[in-house]
Amino acid sequence: MEAHPIRSIGLVMKRGVDEALEVGRRLSAFIRGRGLEVLAEPEVAGALGARPFAARDLARQADLVVVLGGDGTLLSIARLVGARETPILGINLGGLGFLTHARIAEAQDSVARILAGDFTVDRRITLEAVVERSGRDVEAGRAEWLPAVNDVVINKRILGRILDLEVFADRLPFCCYRADGLIVATPTGSTGYALSAGGPIVFPTLGVVVLAPICPHTLSNRPVVIPDRFAVEVIIRSPDHEASLTLDGREVATLKPGDLVRVRKGKACVALVSSSHSYFEIWRDKLRWG
Amino acid sequence: MEAHPIRSIGLVMKRGVDEALEVGRRLSAFIRGRGLEVLAEPEVAGALGARPFAARDLARQADLVVVLGGDGTLLSIARLVGARETPILGINLGGLGFLTHARIAEAQDSVARILAGDFTVDRRITLEAVVERSGRDVEAGRAEWLPAVNDVVINKRILGRILDLEVFADRLPFCCYRADGLIVATPTGSTGYALSAGGPIVFPTLGVVVLAPICPHTLSNRPVVIPDRFAVEVIIRSPDHEASLTLDGREVATLKPGDLVRVRKGKACVALVSSSHSYFEIWRDKLRWG
Amino acid sequence: MEAHPIRSIGLVMKRGVDEALEVGRRLSAFIRGRGLEVLAEPEVAGALGARPFAARDLARQADLVVVLGGDGTLLSIARLVGARETPILGINLGGLGFLTHARIAEAQDSVARILAGDFTVDRRITLEAVVERSGRDVEAGRAEWLPAVNDVVINKRILGRILDLEVFADRLPFCCYRADGLIVATPTGSTGYALSAGGPIVFPTLGVVVLAPICPHTLSNRPVVIPDRFAVEVIIRSPDHEASLTLDGREVATLKPGDLVRVRKGKACVALVSSSHSYFEIWRDKLRWG
Amino acid sequence: MEAHPIRSIGLVMKRGVDEALEVGRRLSAFIRGRGLEVLAEPEVAGALGARPFAARDLARQADLVVVLGGDGTLLSIARLVGARETPILGINLGGLGFLTHARIAEAQDSVARILAGDFTVDRRITLEAVVERSGRDVEAGRAEWLPAVNDVVINKRILGRILDLEVFADRLPFCCYRADGLIVATPTGSTGYALSAGGPIVFPTLGVVVLAPICPHTLSNRPVVIPDRFAVEVIIRSPDHEASLTLDGREVATLKPGDLVRVRKGKACVALVSSSHSYFEIWRDKLRWG
Repeated sequence: MEAHPIRSIGLVMKRGVDEALEVGRRLSAFIRGRGLEVLAEPEVAGALGARPFAARDLARQADLVVVLGGDGTLLSIARLVGARETPILGINLGGLGFLTHARIAEAQDSVARILAGDFTVDRRITLEAVVERSGRDVEAGRAEWLPAVNDVVINKRILGRILDLEVFADRLPFCCYRADGLIVATPTGSTGYALSAGGPIVFPTLGVVVLAPICPHTLSNRPVVIPDRFAVEVIIRSPDHEASLTLDGREVATLKPGDLVRVRKGKACVALVSSSHSYFEIWRDKLRWG
Repeated sequence: MEAHPIRSIGLVMKRGVDEALEVGRRLSAFIRGRGLEVLAEPEVAGALGARPFAARDLARQADLVVVLGGDGTLLSIARLVGARETPILGINLGGLGFLTHARIAEAQDSVARILAGDFTVDRRITLEAVVERSGRDVEAGRAEWLPAVNDVVINKRILGRILDLEVFADRLPFCCYRADGLIVATPTGSTGYALSAGGPIVFPTLGVVVLAPICPHTLSNRPVVIPDRFAVEVIIRSPDHEASLTLDGREVATLKPGDLVRVRKGKACVALVSSSHSYFEIWRDKLRWG
Repeated sequence: MEAHPIRSIGLVMKRGVDEALEVGRRLSAFIRGRGLEVLAEPEVAGALGARPFAARDLARQADLVVVLGGDGTLLSIARLVGARETPILGINLGGLGFLTHARIAEAQDSVARILAGDFTVDRRITLEAVVERSGRDVEAGRAEWLPAVNDVVINKRILGRILDLEVFADRLPFCCYRADGLIVATPTGSTGYALSAGGPIVFPTLGVVVLAPICPHTLSNRPVVIPDRFAVEVIIRSPDHEASLTLDGREVATLKPGDLVRVRKGKACVALVSSSHSYFEIWRDKLRWG
Repeated sequence: MEAHPIRSIGLVMKRGVDEALEVGRRLSAFIRGRGLEVLAEPEVAGALGARPFAARDLARQADLVVVLGGDGTLLSIARLVGARETPILGINLGGLGFLTHARIAEAQDSVARILAGDFTVDRRITLEAVVERSGRDVEAGRAEWLPAVNDVVINKRILGRILDLEVFADRLPFCCYRADGLIVATPTGSTGYALSAGGPIVFPTLGVVVLAPICPHTLSNRPVVIPDRFAVEVIIRSPDHEASLTLDGREVATLKPGDLVRVRKGKACVALVSSSHSYFEIWRDKLRWG
């Protein structure tokens, strides 16, 4: 991945938030004043004086994406960027986010610095999942199957019943879990669902994944950190249970007994513009360590 | 609740286990040899030389219920006993259970001791739940709504989304949880799902309930132990989410935004014949403290 | 325990805090204005217009104790009250405390209400500990051995080494821990050290104690809640280790291999004036559940 | 680090275990039968027909070290190996160890395979610690300050009091802990003390360290995984407390208020002969996931 000269900037805004639009307008004017093109989704393009693009096209044609919103807004565009690894700057509409590192007051300065070439990016790994049923891949290629930036989660669908999962890592038998489910999280996702399930906080640029069982029956089934080059394979072993597969919270498949879910590091990363706030500062703030 | 003289014994057996039937036959012969009547479910009554009764009738007409199976088998009959609080002796087909305290080798002696009046019971509290929607109770009276011996659980139904729950205890504001769900467990249930969710192990005869949030977003939302006389009321606050209500793992209702679930100590207890094995011994064995 | 008519009030103040003195002066004037006597420790008695008393005498002669400070100040006087169970009102100098429930702004009103008889108390259990060495009690009767309001803790003294503890509860074998130590906490103490060690939050008036091992080697050694009528006995089993015994954080003895620590519910309780803030409100505030 | 041709093998044995000596004798005969020299500590050299060497010399002169014992025995020799990174084969006298991967029955075959060059090593990082007081290093150079293979631990010395620790990572402010202490663990140490303190299990060859606070006062202070290239600096902030510094369980210094402990990845690694048992198999066995 090589840095592109920045000729166009995509502005992605949280829907239905007046403040986002207001900040967006000023930022758009600033960017156009520097002679660059602004791309935006059709709903807001007019208000921003921007060229209208569908989200997916915007993500792949802009040379920089600026998100005005929260971590959720950033995630929804990040997974569309793909192999081009367009840098993303996240501006949080309130306080700081785990992914949206800049405050509104810092928005214009941050963009100016990027245009001046004065920035670096943190490449965050993603996770891809495929499902094999009776030896064949199922449901591949659908849009929902975009890589996960946070986590791939297998969850029980039949409430009140525990799930039996047989897990392989690096092609070797790893563990048989009896649990509500299993979270496979990137370092980025370690401060999300995996943290609620008892997982550790992982520095965002490490090449690792976290396996965190959800409410495991065996109390010594503690979260595990393994290299991100290991494929993680999960077989649904409960004979009469369905399970659910979600990527970053989007349910993408219903799993049947015998199904195998293969989770691998995604081919592309997400390139976040590095923050002027250290990750430690963000953790202290978001997790209220103060 | 007063002890009944024991004139009839209901034998409840785990389905499809030959060993249960074999032990049951011997036990039935032993009981009938003492001049008592044996009741059993229709499927096995013939093999046991017992009078056939549906489970619910058996539970309420026998003066003692003997379970041959595991904790699940015991639970399924325990919730049918109702106000009569018929004593239940649980015989585990392998090792020890949290509720099925006697081993096969101890079965006949245990029954003999009970017939000699040499026994006490531990009364375990139960939990009842009702759902109020727009000020009216819903779905009350259905058979599935029998009291829970282990736990009442509210769980998210839409995977990948967090649930917002507003909880009152003793009619006072208690906590607003953002979580996968909430477990309200009896001491009996404290070694089940609540333990997997991080809850404490509670001595079985204490008059308390455990509130254990499932994967709470706020890390300081730790499990809480409160008096069992407190009503626990939970309102589904997520505007567009459904949730699920389960009693001892049986799904009894789909909850909608605004629904209020009221959990109260059940009017009747479950009377388990006290074990010759201390609860501590059972914990050491089941939780592998050794 | 019966309520005394209130003729004298002991004012106990956090040392070296100007604000405490200022509030104390006003409160003292208010109390004396109602014709009651004020008792205070010699260091501050002059400034408060109070009769000077040593802390222990004050605790046992006043008909009501008002604490101006934090939970630590309250604890230090609470354990001196003894069998008389003098009611204690805790006024927190900043925000709310787990034990000091009233805010400064509420101080005068709270006292007025108590004088009008419009109050109830929550009786909190205490814990007593004795140490048996070679069959004889050691170090009994020293002043430090006052009952604990929060917890009795056995901790390793030799860092880097794990402690072996054999525990009996209710005279029955309970568990053998390999751990850094063991906390035996009252419900009052459940929000202190025991919480940091993974224990549950327990409603303050329940008749239970929490056993929470500190960094246990066996991961299934989870915190346990048992009736407060059970004696808890702990034997130091590590052959060449010393351990330390602390009551409410005060180190009272060095334990040797073979020593037995017997922890029992104290004969007297601590009578806290009930708060106008519910315990749930205090938990939300102190644990930042908001 | 380059592989040496193996001309001499050091045999290190757990003291006072007859079985170790018995297995050692056979192994020594086997090695000498292949024309190689055997080195051993003076106490057992005679019995083994080996040349006597002090542990430190043995560790640095042998071309391969074979440990007969448990993980503790392996650790005590591993930290003496130093920059030469002599490969170590650990043979466990009972079952499997986290570090002693081979069973007795596999001992001779394992050595034969190593002599045939058919082996790889896993390089495990170590941790070094220095203490700065008033700007000067203290107590450096003493033998106890050998690198830690498992963990560097700062622990309170005054029981019943909480420790205030200000931590920097990668030269940036990281977190202020109020806790019993702080564990800085290697992946190797992640299955030891850090696991008891709530840390994750980390794959042994990852270039990371775990920071796990011990009984932290702030419940959101969860264990953290950071790159091993980050220096971790800890300042004792409690004004009147002493703390203790231990490396792999050996107490090496008493820390005073204001002291700064700097923990860094050691210059040398420990080279363990790779196991024929996968790490996952060892975890399943040792943590009883079965």
